[in-house]
Order: sequence, then C-alpha cells, then structure tokens
Amino acid sequence: MAVTDPETLRKEGERIDDLQLSGLKILQDPKRFCFGMDAVLLSGFVRCERGRLLDLGTGTGILPLLLSAKTKAEHLTGLEIQPDSADMARRSVAMNDLQERITIVTGDLKEAGAIFPPASFDVVTCNPPYIADSHGLKNASDAKAIARHEVCCALADVVNAAAKMLKVGGTLYLVYLPERLSELTVRLHEAGLEPKRLRIVYPTKEQKPSMILLGAVRGGKSGLTMEPPLIVCDEPGVYSEEMRRDFGY
Amino acid sequence: MAVTDPETLRKEGERIDDLQLSGLKILQDPKRFCFGMDAVLLSGFVRCERGRLLDLGTGTGILPLLLSAKTKAEHLTGLEIQPDSADMARRSVAMNDLQERITIVTGDLKEAGAIFPPASFDVVTCNPPYIADSHGLKNASDAKAIARHEVCCALADVVNAAAKMLKVGGTLYLVYLPERLSELTVRLHEAGLEPKRLRIVYPTKEQKPSMILLGAVRGGKSGLTMEPPLIVCDEPGVYSEEMRRDFGY
Repeated sequence: MAVTDPETLRKEGERIDDLQLSGLKILQDPKRFCFGMDAVLLSGFVRCERGRLLDLGTGTGILPLLLSAKTKAEHLTGLEIQPDSADMARRSVAMNDLQERITIVTGDLKEAGAIFPPASFDVVTCNPPYIADSHGLKNASDAKAIARHEVCCALADVVNAAAKMLKVGGTLYLVYLPERLSELTVRLHEAGLEPKRLRIVYPTKEQKPSMILLGAVRGGKSGLTMEPPLIVCDEPGVYSEEMRRDFGY
Repeated sequence: MAVTDPETLRKEGERIDDLQLSGLKILQDPKRFCFGMDAVLLSGFVRCERGRLLDLGTGTGILPLLLSAKTKAEHLTGLEIQPDSADMARRSVAMNDLQERITIVTGDLKEAGAIFPPASFDVVTCNPPYIADSHGLKNASDAKAIARHEVCCALADVVNAAAKMLKVGGTLYLVYLPERLSELTVRLHEAGLEPKRLRIVYPTKEQKPSMILLGAVRGGKSGLTMEPPLIVCDEPGVYSEEMRRDFGY
C-alpha cells in the first residue's frame, strides 16, 4: 500500500503531531483548536468490540484516529460542523491511510437524524463543548469557542443525537464536566440512555475532579458501575503510573 | 448539671461505646445493628450552621449524637421505626445529657408528614438501607435486615420524606451506594431536590468506590460541586491521614 507523504496534505499554519500510538499522526492548527487530555482519556475509556462507531463533533478527528487503534470498531465516522476542521480531519485520515476505516462527514449533529439512518451505530462518542454560557464571547464563530462553549450545540442536542443514532443496547461515551454530572444524568435518563459506567478524573488525590468519563446504554437497566479514580498526577507535575503507562504522558 | 450514670441506662446485651468525640458515648447491641463507617463519614460531610436537623431512620441515634458535636444545629430529631432501637437511642441521648438538644421520635419515615409540620427542618440526614432487593431474606423483621435492606422503606420514601420535611433552601445529606447514584440523582431531581455536593469514598486509590456522600438542596439550581476523593486507606489496612485526623481511625 502506498503511504501518502504527510507534507502533501499539510496546509500553511498546520503542524503534524505524532500521536505516540501505532504510528498515528494528526494535523493540528494551533490558531484553531488542539486536542487536550480530555480526548485522550475518553479514548482510553471507550469499549467497542465490533460494529460501527460515530464521533459527534469530531473536530480534528482525534477520537476516530485514536479509537481506530484502541478499539475493534469496524468502521468509524466523525461528524463535524465546521468545514475547515472537517477538511483537516479528512486529510489526517488520509495521512494515516485510514480512508477505508474512517469517514469524516461535514454536518451538524442536530441534523444527525437526516444524515444517517436511525439506530445505525453500536457506539457513539462525544467530547462536547462543556461551557453552558456562550454569552459575552468575543467571537462565537471562532473555532476554539465552538469547541469549548455551547455555541453550535447544547448538551440536550448531543444526548438527543446519540439516542437517535444508537442501536438499542449501544453505548454513548462522553467526557464532561463534574459540575454538570447531575444534569447529564437526568437528561440521559429522560432520553432512554442509562448511565452504566462512570470514572472520575482527579488532577491529584487531594483535588476536586476535573472531568468525568461516562458510558450510558440505550435501553439499559438501572445500575451504575463506578470505577477506581483516575488520578492524573501523584503530585503536581508528576504524572501517575497509569497516565504514563496507558496514555504515554 | 448532674451527669447520669451510664450503667443505669444500659440493658442486658448492650455495650457502651466511646465515640472518641467530645466525650460522647453510645449504647449498641451487637446482636442488633452497630453503626459503621458510613455513618461516621456522613457525619463529617454534613454542614449545619443553625436551625433544626432531622435524621430519618436514626437507628441507634449515631447521627444525631455525632452531629450534636460536629455541627451547630440548635435541635436534632431522630426518627426511628423500630421501638427497641428508638428506646436504646433515647437512653444514649440521656446518657450524654443531651435530652434538651436531641429528641428521638418513634415513627415511620413514610408518615413523617403526619408527625412533623411540613417544611420545618433546615437539614435532613439519612443513612438509608442500601440494598434494593429484600427477597429471600431469612428474617425481614430482623433489626440488621431493616437497617440494610429496603424492608421498611425504599429510596423513594426517603427522598419524598426529605422533600416534605425540608424548608426551601434546606439540604438533604445522604450516604449511599455508588451503584445507585444515577437512580438517586433522577429521584432527587424529580422531587425538587437538586444535588449540589458529591464526594466519592474509595477504599484505596486503586479500587472502585464503596460509598457516595451527597448533599441535595430543596429548590436548588443545577450545578454540582464534586469534592476531592475520600480515600480510606493508603494501602490495605493502613488508614489515610484524613481518616486518622478527621475521624479518629
């Protein structure tokens, strides 16, 4: 198989980053949005033994790329509303010669029901914008703002899209803010997605959590497995053994 | 003030335990039910700066006793369905000469609305039975079974009683099973009690949590503060500094 020369796919201002996993590379534009630890930790939380996976709001395509190596998903689709991000993600897929396994679709997750057949995915993933308040943003069309604030979609949109796209028994995996766990739980329950796995991410064991990782099953029965804490640093600046061993920090 | 001789209050089979806090003592009957770490950890989680506190299903009265020393509650009421437990709790209150600050009421929390005026408490606490399934119990009238299994009351009864008894802005504090966090969150939300504080208790930092401590405010706005993890042991058998410093383990 001919390997594409990465440089032919890179546009001005973009850089090529090594994902330290199975030789994967990704294009990122530091002026736009670069993936963070949240996406990396979510990629380690997702379970997918087969079938079709959909990543809502895929941005640079970081999740489909990492999950192509970390799971057995047969096909991965990334849905992205911003055409420039979708184009960059598509070029990253090509750079890794993964066009047959990963498809990047330009579109709005609020329209997922018109883009894909209902109940056609085994797993849905999302690293949604966390910040409910988009008032006072200087530039709400800014790529960073769209990735972080609920400019283009709110939590309810993500939950509703996942509920439509998942097969019964399929799982939605999210990384989200601890502050919004209760709201998330109630919305998922109302949409027929039952929280089944929860892992709390703490910066150190003395600090409040910074993220939650949650898996919710469409049509699942009540009953949550809470996992051991994910502690990022043993002390400030010193990554824990798990972070070094499982995520290469 | 005359101090009551503890021995005059002790009945056969009961023992007098030192609570290692402000000289407090408690009567317990090992054949019935002895308080556990869950009650102790809940007592450290409750905040009450003033006003009236109600403990639902108070058992031996462990929570009102500990909270009389740990909070500024002006009056504490323990409601207990089992007459023998209520009697023992009442004698423990007398043993500590706390009759003016703590009242033990014999009664069913499902009837709380008929026992107390509505919205008459600032804080409600509960260490409810955790185990949903009471089928197959050898003796459902056993005091241990009533304390652990949902024989006399289910989660919904506790939540509904708290919603009736709390003033608007008052807080329900619970210790509960991690497996039932989602169910608890949904029920609280439906009853108008919004989860505002959550602390997860892990036996060690490598293990799944064993308990959750949750505070929910009647009429509260959405938005949860998740606290640092409470890690019981640094390694199996060695209590963490917090457990030694704050709880005397």
